Amino acid sequence: MSGLKALWQNPLPLVLASKSAARQALLTSAGLPFEAVDAKIDERATEASLLVRKAGAAEVAAHLARAKALAVSALRPEHLVIGADQVLDLDGRLFAKPKDLAEAVQHLALLSGRTHNLHSAFCVARGGKILKEDAPVARLTCRVLSAAFIEAYVTTAGPELLNSVGAGAVEGLGIQVLERIEGDHTTIMGLPLIPLLQFLREEGSLLA
Amino acid sequence: MSGLKALWQNPLPLVLASKSAARQALLTSAGLPFEAVDAKIDERATEASLLVRKAGAAEVAAHLARAKALAVSALRPEHLVIGADQVLDLDGRLFAKPKDLAEAVQHLALLSGRTHNLHSAFCVARGGKILKEDAPVARLTCRVLSAAFIEAYVTTAGPELLNSVGAGAVEGLGIQVLERIEGDHTTIMGLPLIPLLQFLREEGSLLA
Repeated sequence: MSGLKALWQNPLPLVLASKSAARQALLTSAGLPFEAVDAKIDERATEASLLVRKAGAAEVAAHLARAKALAVSALRPEHLVIGADQVLDLDGRLFAKPKDLAEAVQHLALLSGRTHNLHSAFCVARGGKILKEDAPVARLTCRVLSAAFIEAYVTTAGPELLNSVGAGAVEGLGIQVLERIEGDHTTIMGLPLIPLLQFLREEGSLLA
Repeated sequence: MSGLKALWQNPLPLVLASKSAARQALLTSAGLPFEAVDAKIDERATEASLLVRKAGAAEVAAHLARAKALAVSALRPEHLVIGADQVLDLDGRLFAKPKDLAEAVQHLALLSGRTHNLHSAFCVARGGKILKEDAPVARLTCRVLSAAFIEAYVTTAGPELLNSVGAGAVEGLGIQVLERIEGDHTTIMGLPLIPLLQFLREEGSLLA
């Protein structure tokens, strides 16, 4: 074991165009060096303008991932910049993070007994050019939830429910809501590492 | 929001017949109260005796999960006791955790470019009786790994590679080895929470 070879081959670290703690944790655990830079785009305004022209969930997620990557690419033109966005879609209805616990209760009642899609888009840009985009979909099925369960669940989870779309963090209490999970964990967590790492190997930044 | 109702309805906590940090973390994050009690069975001897009579991976995992649950049920007869075990199977060949980094290199070379199964068995017992058993399977496909990658990977991951079967922790550096993941995260992590929680709801310990 010489230990001379590093997995990361690029002299520059990645740039993650996101302040999301979950996405930063995913890159860290995968062993990728990166700097996080806030894209400072108005996500809700961009999303609203897309929804006015009836954009679907996949389109909204891809558009926001691209907008974040390109905004930060202008600040770090030499670096590979990753933008990402996730949109929850229940039969064509898009869900944002709940504004308060009362709205979290409403969302859980709507998701109960049904399957929703998480569109998890990412975009890699360099020098203002898009090098790679993809948007895998995870499908999550919520079991039928009693009103008593929803009340106890929201009370127990508390304000952390406002940090994620849908039924709460799947890596936490949210698992109590689900009866079926299709899609890999990193897609559900908001940064699909399998296709991202594959691109980084093809591009030469990551040892294959 | 009255906050009076709790999700956990059983006056007694669960007992986890395992010292596995990953399994304890899964129960904690799912919001379940539990006590961990070491089953103190000789897993390798039990496994060896099963292998002599050509038991398959599913049988070995189920047998060990059962043995752990029953051993600890004798110590905590009133409690629901969970035993669990995970066995990696590559086309009928069973893999234990690597003994050292040289063996980790060998395992990675064998897994390279192929799909292996993780049999993740659990058993719930009370008063010496088995109430529930299940053993979901996750299928993980390793990409084709270069010798240079394997060397750099094992050097980077280091001794923590010896804590898991196969290609390393999927929630860590191990994601760099995989090109396809089928099966939910808790099954891959060694304690399938979806069917376990479903049983606990049916049994009345967990609010539905």
